[in-house]
Amino acid sequence: MSAELPEWIGAVVDWDMLYTTGEERMRLVIDLSRENVLRGTGGPFGAAVFETGSGRLLSAGVNSVERLKNSALHAEVLALMLAQRRLHSFTLNAVSLPECELVSSCEPCAMCLGAVLWSGVRQLTCGAGRDDAMRIHFEEGPVFPASFAYLEQRGIRIVRDFLRDEANSVLTLYAERGGALYNA
Amino acid sequence: MSAELPEWIGAVVDWDMLYTTGEERMRLVIDLSRENVLRGTGGPFGAAVFETGSGRLLSAGVNSVERLKNSALHAEVLALMLAQRRLHSFTLNAVSLPECELVSSCEPCAMCLGAVLWSGVRQLTCGAGRDDAMRIHFEEGPVFPASFAYLEQRGIRIVRDFLRDEANSVLTLYAERGGALYNA
Repeated sequence: MSAELPEWIGAVVDWDMLYTTGEERMRLVIDLSRENVLRGTGGPFGAAVFETGSGRLLSAGVNSVERLKNSALHAEVLALMLAQRRLHSFTLNAVSLPECELVSSCEPCAMCLGAVLWSGVRQLTCGAGRDDAMRIHFEEGPVFPASFAYLEQRGIRIVRDFLRDEANSVLTLYAERGGALYNA
Repeated sequence: MSAELPEWIGAVVDWDMLYTTGEERMRLVIDLSRENVLRGTGGPFGAAVFETGSGRLLSAGVNSVERLKNSALHAEVLALMLAQRRLHSFTLNAVSLPECELVSSCEPCAMCLGAVLWSGVRQLTCGAGRDDAMRIHFEEGPVFPASFAYLEQRGIRIVRDFLRDEANSVLTLYAERGGALYNA
């Protein structure tokens, strides 16, 4: 099974840069979400895994459901899978590894929120909100306030509405271009 | 990224058989869960996608988190991905396709329940229950009664506790053998 990134990723992502601030990290995944729309490779969602302390970028993901004909390959799942492949570990919370975080251009759906829990990241940062996704008729699935609380109780820090307006502008762009609504 | 089944699958699965009854379908995924334990290739969980009407087997999955170093590759996610790959479709609910169902040896975790919703299967049948998995210290994540209701409201039929005791016996086997608890 193939789960590779689109070819244009190298033109957008600087793999050698250290993303030291939260703004730099979120702007990267917003750029990924926008490019995925503009280049017609999928839905308006981007995500990336960073080492929390150093800001080293471990992996990137964009929504790849249509491109790879796989309904599980949301941006977050793809980014988490690629980070684990890179580190040869099924958990990003191994004692030998620096702490990792997932940054997503939008609040994760039910599947992705579960994937975050199992992945071993210690922080989840979200740009756009569930309401923003639903406004353009994307569904988020069975996610409840108790779902986020469940992750927090297990030590995962959750930051929401981070550069939300910038992230939301890509959802608007997608809707204006008449982008496909899969999984509906 | 690789997401292939273990080599022994061909010795356990008859790809040409029609699994016409619910018992045959569930016994196949229980066999998969047991073999995954006995052959040391992962956690005690199996799943498969069938065409509901004909009983044709489209894909099989076993828990592959440790084997493939990927925390998202639960049995259900792997089976759904492989069914979509086989049918070249990101949804199993396309008008050109016969209705499909997912059969799982245990109630899905939060991630897998979300994956079921996006996959396009029209029915989910579960063997062992959440309590059975938790009894041997596996976590299921933020799944609530409202989570199952959410899927049912979108037309997915959910059948639980189907051959539960048989399915649960494999969880007991895994615990007795001291199997690893990943994602804990």
